[in-house]
Amino acid sequence: MDIDPPEVLKNPLTVTTKLLMGPGPSSCSPRVLQAIMDDIKEGIQYAFQTKNELTLAISGSGHTGMEAVFSATVNIVSSKPGVSLKLSEIANAIERVKPKLLFIVQGDSSTGVLQPVDDLGPICPSLCAVPFDMDRWGVDAAYTCSQKILGAPPGLAPISFSPKARDVILSRKTPVPVYYWDMTLLGRQWNCFDGNRIYHHTVSANLLYGLREGLAIIADEGLEHVIQRHGTCAKRLYHGLEKMGFKLYVEQDDDRLCSVTTVSIPEWIHWDDVVLYLRRQNVTISGGLGPTAGKAFRIGLMGYNATLQNVIYLLNVLQEAIDYVKLLKISKL
Amino acid sequence: MDIDPPEVLKNPLTVTTKLLMGPGPSSCSPRVLQAIMDDIKEGIQYAFQTKNELTLAISGSGHTGMEAVFSATVNIVSSKPGVSLKLSEIANAIERVKPKLLFIVQGDSSTGVLQPVDDLGPICPSLCAVPFDMDRWGVDAAYTCSQKILGAPPGLAPISFSPKARDVILSRKTPVPVYYWDMTLLGRQWNCFDGNRIYHHTVSANLLYGLREGLAIIADEGLEHVIQRHGTCAKRLYHGLEKMGFKLYVEQDDDRLCSVTTVSIPEWIHWDDVVLYLRRQNVTISGGLGPTAGKAFRIGLMGYNATLQNVIYLLNVLQEAIDYVKLLKISKL
Repeated sequence: MDIDPPEVLKNPLTVTTKLLMGPGPSSCSPRVLQAIMDDIKEGIQYAFQTKNELTLAISGSGHTGMEAVFSATVNIVSSKPGVSLKLSEIANAIERVKPKLLFIVQGDSSTGVLQPVDDLGPICPSLCAVPFDMDRWGVDAAYTCSQKILGAPPGLAPISFSPKARDVILSRKTPVPVYYWDMTLLGRQWNCFDGNRIYHHTVSANLLYGLREGLAIIADEGLEHVIQRHGTCAKRLYHGLEKMGFKLYVEQDDDRLCSVTTVSIPEWIHWDDVVLYLRRQNVTISGGLGPTAGKAFRIGLMGYNATLQNVIYLLNVLQEAIDYVKLLKISKL
Repeated sequence: MDIDPPEVLKNPLTVTTKLLMGPGPSSCSPRVLQAIMDDIKEGIQYAFQTKNELTLAISGSGHTGMEAVFSATVNIVSSKPGVSLKLSEIANAIERVKPKLLFIVQGDSSTGVLQPVDDLGPICPSLCAVPFDMDRWGVDAAYTCSQKILGAPPGLAPISFSPKARDVILSRKTPVPVYYWDMTLLGRQWNCFDGNRIYHHTVSANLLYGLREGLAIIADEGLEHVIQRHGTCAKRLYHGLEKMGFKLYVEQDDDRLCSVTTVSIPEWIHWDDVVLYLRRQNVTISGGLGPTAGKAFRIGLMGYNATLQNVIYLLNVLQEAIDYVKLLKISKL
């Protein structure tokens, strides 16, 4: 790790109670918020392992990260669902298309595939559940969402640009078409350039508190340990599922994304009944999405939820559900 | 009032605790959220006094409302700061420019001016502190933010489109350039059209809870009473300020926006010292913005804060601050 956990995130957050009689928002003083924004910036730099100055959180869902980074005519390079792209496949596509930008998804939550991205230097969404070394890998732009590994409420998208990407943004000849994610302005609101902080839009104080806390927890635990914990939990889950007779959707161990496990829907049991039983126990797992729709179900182990206790509890409830559905079938005969 | 307070907002919100093992977000079940989204839709319809089906909240600050509604070459019609536009001035500008869209700010928080918008049928941001009858006035699109009169955390922008505006959106020949506020998709996520709800982006559950509660409080109190309360508080504030020797920045009573009062910075006292004293008492008021920068200070009375108790407390602390600064000056002599 090149970037150490920020000192500022080791202090608990204190917010003074104020009578807010200014013309809105009805939230805490800008000075408090600015301090939190600075803390968050350092937290994201740590999570992404980068010293990039242009590092901030967009006020929006993870999707906004993508829209803020680029708008382009896209040539898609796809792999077989459940298998990651080989470096040679990417290299060939680059040779063929000669793109201005290379965009890669590190962790694909629809298939549960982990795509190796080191040594590519692309734009890519980051994860924190697996190593992501933005500076070392020469990544020009990275974004993520707040509500998965970071464990904060959804609504903010951490994003970071390399000095090279920043220079491209600052030397644009046409204005950024969308005000809401114009980095030349957002960067000033987040104090990423020299000069005074400006007002760009009302950032949600509540979400900032949450994101700061999520980043503080990661800084406190240490990124290495967070990554290790997610890996350990995933391995325990794989083992338990396979022992119960399930088949993991992603065959190669290296291709598996530890934070989202995709499992082929078994034919030996009426799966909808299993899901129904789990739901009655207030345990939510998800169906497939896109290429895995109708083919796999998905189990997430993220942030605060990624504990061995939760894995074992889930496996037990799953076994219970299977036993129940089998009994149900017998009683119907 | 044509639109009554929604029945659904009279029930308190109950959320079951669940073990979330799906592939993120780490938030409550989609079914719970969808119910809340439906409640919010009804709450916005009540606040805007509209039956528009295409009514939802964008996941972003109030500014996103504007960007989601239009992108246009703009001809600006400005009034003298502190004075609202006359209907004839607007009519003349329409005659001259023949615009496709008319955009009007009902309450300008930088100058504290209330612009009459009834009978114009424009696009406009709504307030809830003053009457706003979207359907009766024939407004085609309206938006607001969550953190002012609605008293919810910032991060969601309630927005509504008339059937006519919806038809324009749905019959576009070019795709909406920004995915994040593509109403053809957002409208489906918010169940505003017939058919199945789709996933568009991860809406912040926490913000939805807050907005639902803010709208429920307004439904509970009743829009008429909310409007009356803001008016009463503002009048008490005007009276108190004038008695203390302050001059309201907006001269005409009809032009005054009850939720944001702009006050000319007095020359008979060192104003910065007054602000400093207030800040030490944890009372925040704001300086001017744009045309009022350096000329006026601004006092907001919004939502939960708009009570006579708060007005009287503020006036007392302000008097204390003035007395203190005067004493300070004497002791320096």
